[in-house]
Amino acid sequence: MPTFRLTLEYDGRDFAGWQVQPGVTRTVQGALESAFERVTGQRVRVIGSGRTDAGAHAEGQVASVRLETALAPAALQRALNGVLPVAVAVRAAELAPEGFDARRAARSKLYRYAIWNGPIRSPLRAARAWDVRPPLDAAAMGRAARAFLGTHDFASFQAAGSAVRTTVRTLTRFELEGCTRGEIFLWVEGDGFLRHMVRTLVGTLAEVGRGRRPERAMAAILATRERRSAGPTAPAGGLTLVRVDY
Amino acid sequence: MPTFRLTLEYDGRDFAGWQVQPGVTRTVQGALESAFERVTGQRVRVIGSGRTDAGAHAEGQVASVRLETALAPAALQRALNGVLPVAVAVRAAELAPEGFDARRAARSKLYRYAIWNGPIRSPLRAARAWDVRPPLDAAAMGRAARAFLGTHDFASFQAAGSAVRTTVRTLTRFELEGCTRGEIFLWVEGDGFLRHMVRTLVGTLAEVGRGRRPERAMAAILATRERRSAGPTAPAGGLTLVRVDY
Repeated sequence: MPTFRLTLEYDGRDFAGWQVQPGVTRTVQGALESAFERVTGQRVRVIGSGRTDAGAHAEGQVASVRLETALAPAALQRALNGVLPVAVAVRAAELAPEGFDARRAARSKLYRYAIWNGPIRSPLRAARAWDVRPPLDAAAMGRAARAFLGTHDFASFQAAGSAVRTTVRTLTRFELEGCTRGEIFLWVEGDGFLRHMVRTLVGTLAEVGRGRRPERAMAAILATRERRSAGPTAPAGGLTLVRVDY
Repeated sequence: MPTFRLTLEYDGRDFAGWQVQPGVTRTVQGALESAFERVTGQRVRVIGSGRTDAGAHAEGQVASVRLETALAPAALQRALNGVLPVAVAVRAAELAPEGFDARRAARSKLYRYAIWNGPIRSPLRAARAWDVRPPLDAAAMGRAARAFLGTHDFASFQAAGSAVRTTVRTLTRFELEGCTRGEIFLWVEGDGFLRHMVRTLVGTLAEVGRGRRPERAMAAILATRERRSAGPTAPAGGLTLVRVDY
């Protein structure tokens, strides 16, 4: 049976996250599975590279679908885009090797987190950025973020109550772009992410930016392996899944 | 009585346009007048530099308000931003000369119109750009737009049924930025604009971009002074009022 690889863009405001859940009407996965059913008449399972949180956006989420169809990838893409809600689109569709699984095969993911740190809140940025009013020392946040590069146990930055086999992850990029009193973008790339991990890293760095935690404290937070050592979870609306590499 | 000058940012999706209208609950003017009443206890009239359409955005709309208050402009700004809906913010507040009227004193306005012309629709751009699927020849649109520079009778580009004293306006800038199969921004600056004028100019240029009208036809459309000679009105969501000069 052919396996398709889809690249997806979506506006997270319109969805209760990626994953289909009982009693939740609008999820990205659910919208895609409904679209496949309308286009092909078949009930399929759409596998994402990972779950994105309610309110989080994607420019390049990747999903895989096994499907018996005579449609070429380009025709399937056009048909899906014709029936999907405006808040989600298939940016690319291609045939993948037999057995391709978007979740298990993912090698790395790139996220961007946006903070609006202007002196006045910005209505036009509100949907895509975390609005932080007190001035953040962006340079100090960038220096503190270096402690997260490389392979670490990120248990302190995982949502409480998560159960995963290992909390060790490797970050290959953690860069800060922008400046105090403007837009700040945090680019984070790694081989995998725990639940709420990017948002909790950002929430903790924002405390460094406000001078509430010393910038050298990050290694000690990692060492505790306790969620309560880290800062708050930054809002989902600032988070965008930019790219998944295989 | 002191007169205040306010600079406003708003997300037009949340409003039925600028102007208070009977039976319409959410307008920008209405939200501001309610905020003034909550902050000062007074019913005031907020005068905008002009009405923006339902769905159109502003980064730098300007409004004037006459108000008896002991509050300094910065304190007034903070108080208003504390009670306004998230979709609108006062970016700046200052004392204006006695009798300053944001509508009558406006010398020029700068608008930006955004088109998303990618091969696939873009959910993350949908709220702020006109989604046009067929490829537009952006260079031809830019050349055609030059016909609108200078002083002309823009009656052909005015919403049907408008009644204004004169339909002559002067455009000092009409520039196109971006390229075919990507984001296209049209920057339009002039001493004043008729109802739907920017949107109809853009809708007509998009027909040039699709090869449906010759790029040299713009002068002839102006000469007819008839709305039916021009192209369709582009959607309001692509339009942003960037700046008003006095």
